[in-house]
Amino acid sequence: MDAAEFRRRGKEMVDLIADYLENIEQRPVYPDVEPGYLRSLIPEEAPEEPETYEDVVKDIERVIMPGAASPACTELETVMMDWLGKMLKLPEDFIAGTHGQGGGVIQGTASEATLVALLAARSRAVRMILASDPQRPETDITSKLVAYSSDQAHCSVERAGMIAGVRMKKIPTEQSDKYAVQGETLRRMIQEDKAAGLIPFYFCATLGTTPSCAFDHITELGPICNAEKIWMHIDAAYAGSSFICPEFRPLLNGIEFADSFNFNPHKWLLVNFDCSTMWVRKRSDLIGAFKMDPLYLKHDHQESGRYFDITFSCYSQSIRFRSLKMWFVFRMYGLKGLQDYIRKHVELAKEFESLVRADQRFEISADVVLGLVCFRLKGSNEVNETLLKRINNGRKIHLVPCQLSGQFVLRFAVCARTTESRHIREAWRLITQLAEEVMQELPN
Amino acid sequence: MDAAEFRRRGKEMVDLIADYLENIEQRPVYPDVEPGYLRSLIPEEAPEEPETYEDVVKDIERVIMPGAASPACTELETVMMDWLGKMLKLPEDFIAGTHGQGGGVIQGTASEATLVALLAARSRAVRMILASDPQRPETDITSKLVAYSSDQAHCSVERAGMIAGVRMKKIPTEQSDKYAVQGETLRRMIQEDKAAGLIPFYFCATLGTTPSCAFDHITELGPICNAEKIWMHIDAAYAGSSFICPEFRPLLNGIEFADSFNFNPHKWLLVNFDCSTMWVRKRSDLIGAFKMDPLYLKHDHQESGRYFDITFSCYSQSIRFRSLKMWFVFRMYGLKGLQDYIRKHVELAKEFESLVRADQRFEISADVVLGLVCFRLKGSNEVNETLLKRINNGRKIHLVPCQLSGQFVLRFAVCARTTESRHIREAWRLITQLAEEVMQELPN
Repeated sequence: MDAAEFRRRGKEMVDLIADYLENIEQRPVYPDVEPGYLRSLIPEEAPEEPETYEDVVKDIERVIMPGAASPACTELETVMMDWLGKMLKLPEDFIAGTHGQGGGVIQGTASEATLVALLAARSRAVRMILASDPQRPETDITSKLVAYSSDQAHCSVERAGMIAGVRMKKIPTEQSDKYAVQGETLRRMIQEDKAAGLIPFYFCATLGTTPSCAFDHITELGPICNAEKIWMHIDAAYAGSSFICPEFRPLLNGIEFADSFNFNPHKWLLVNFDCSTMWVRKRSDLIGAFKMDPLYLKHDHQESGRYFDITFSCYSQSIRFRSLKMWFVFRMYGLKGLQDYIRKHVELAKEFESLVRADQRFEISADVVLGLVCFRLKGSNEVNETLLKRINNGRKIHLVPCQLSGQFVLRFAVCARTTESRHIREAWRLITQLAEEVMQELPN
Repeated sequence: MDAAEFRRRGKEMVDLIADYLENIEQRPVYPDVEPGYLRSLIPEEAPEEPETYEDVVKDIERVIMPGAASPACTELETVMMDWLGKMLKLPEDFIAGTHGQGGGVIQGTASEATLVALLAARSRAVRMILASDPQRPETDITSKLVAYSSDQAHCSVERAGMIAGVRMKKIPTEQSDKYAVQGETLRRMIQEDKAAGLIPFYFCATLGTTPSCAFDHITELGPICNAEKIWMHIDAAYAGSSFICPEFRPLLNGIEFADSFNFNPHKWLLVNFDCSTMWVRKRSDLIGAFKMDPLYLKHDHQESGRYFDITFSCYSQSIRFRSLKMWFVFRMYGLKGLQDYIRKHVELAKEFESLVRADQRFEISADVVLGLVCFRLKGSNEVNETLLKRINNGRKIHLVPCQLSGQFVLRFAVCARTTESRHIREAWRLITQLAEEVMQELPN
């Protein structure tokens, strides 16, 4: 949608909202629909080709309004998560459908999803142990629990451990292994911890780490977790969007061993912030961790098992209608449009990578798999820190650094909707110009 | 703003967004402002009288754009929380100002605020105990922690305890005490728990409970918590908005003893969902519970202490720009407009109350303090359950019930922006008509 169409459609939407508010008294205050009503009104999968804005808007009255507010919000979210899950070719277990035990919900951020998964895992672990040892105090169990993640994992994983009050151990990774967690390392840590009387219960794998977009080997790690009854959560916050392209889908191989999986369409799939999509193999595991049932939350369909009660899948009772954003984006781009968008960013990152590789003064610091290029001037950390400061002070482009094996590394991330090849070339021109200045100032 | 103005302003806003996007390349990618830049550009308090939409919109370029994205988001949130805190006449300790140690942040829901306060309290309690007994294992401390709330508190308080992995005890309340927690009861429970080796550390007081809008006696409970170094959190999710009116402000007396306080402007102060405002006496207590510091989150002003780093005040790293909603609403209504809105709803509830009291077949089940009326047919729970079903099946109005001392009670809540006296009278006509039907069907 270009700016001209945005102006036109935006104004139509303002009128639609005003019409709704002006005539609201003619609508029933409570919907008269049965659980599952919405699924039958829309296709089972996202369209391949883009639809028009009119196509989507005319469905608001037909699909959303009959189940206004809560039922529509719950059901569209479940169905959109199915659409997206199918785009990703997730195993059938993660699709809610009409009879599935799994399914997806929208969380605010990957931090929330990691925490929600950890809490569900903790609750499952406690239940399993109490089943065989009912007299054991719960506090004794939780004091022995131990969770794992890569030393490359986002800091929110560590914070999730603090919040849940459980031990969180970082698994060391190596440059030679491309900063991926190795099965052997996890296996050894589990054995040591079990020997010390601890209870391993949760592993957060990362697909596309924040520093360098590294990928843990989940085909190797998953079976270890399954054998040990450890909940494997996969955090693919950034990289997940790319899995809608067949050529990147192999990066998700091993998902069949996971208990939960999350990524952020608000990062790279054109859905506005916030929209962090999370799937679980068994939604009863989530609901078991959060469910409450006071009288003021009771309703007729509660125990029907015919829908995913998303209000019991996070800490809050009130939920925003975030799936509308997904519905509009998926239909107006179509799967092909979204794939094109991902591929274009990866190509632009590759273009930047070749510019870096063609310049002998620079080096690439990690494999370029998707839209992130980790690079640096050959030389000291200090010279790279100076270069970064110069770049960011110019306020033309903005780079966020990382540390890799003690090296200060610059990260070039392609992430704006409107980025074109000319931006990449301009950015590189600017970087090399500043690098020249910085290097000329170096003492001989 | 009526529908006609909404149509006009909405369309202007669409153009403003399109203009911004079309010219985005002319703006610097990173702002060039110092911490505190925004506070000096706008008044220290919300206006008394309404301003116009133009007044607010012309400030977007002057106030927001220079600190585009993160600094503006952080700073406007802190200043709006100060504005609202001042409207509520909160003690100076809760106002951030330029040198304060306290301040406010926006959370998504009261559930989140309760949990965040509980986690901060847990972290503070563990720190205090470790300070005098550094060898004591942290898991031993948390296994002894005990938190309290009213048996009338929202279910999310209990859930917060589950999530944080701490004991949560419900304090019994009585109809004769108007369902308020009594100081004597809390004191006795604390003494018993301490005698049993437990560590009381958190009390969640409720001002305006979900079932009946009851108010805990915080002037009595606060000093007990302070003496015992128990964190007192006040959840006033619904009632809090009314405290901007001098005649309702006494309900908040005792706030001076609290560590944190929360209410939902999205419930009753015309700010769209979600916007749950939370103040803490010491923001270092919050930050201490959530802070992480990887390289990719470092920036120049981190340690300046000159602003409230709201990204460390909840579980997530990414924050929506929710304070814009507060800025628009506070300015376009003015304090007086907001007070008028609250007062009108309370008057409408009183009008409904008099209709109920004038009908001998009905009784009022709890004091009507704000916009909630708890009432029932004199008679069995069954007849009231039948009446409720009839009312809700009609889909003209919708009531959510509660249990009070074993009685099934109907709750009439005035909460829509557009409610007028005629809606109240229509609702009552409908209720009495259905009540007549239900009573005629009763066996003699």
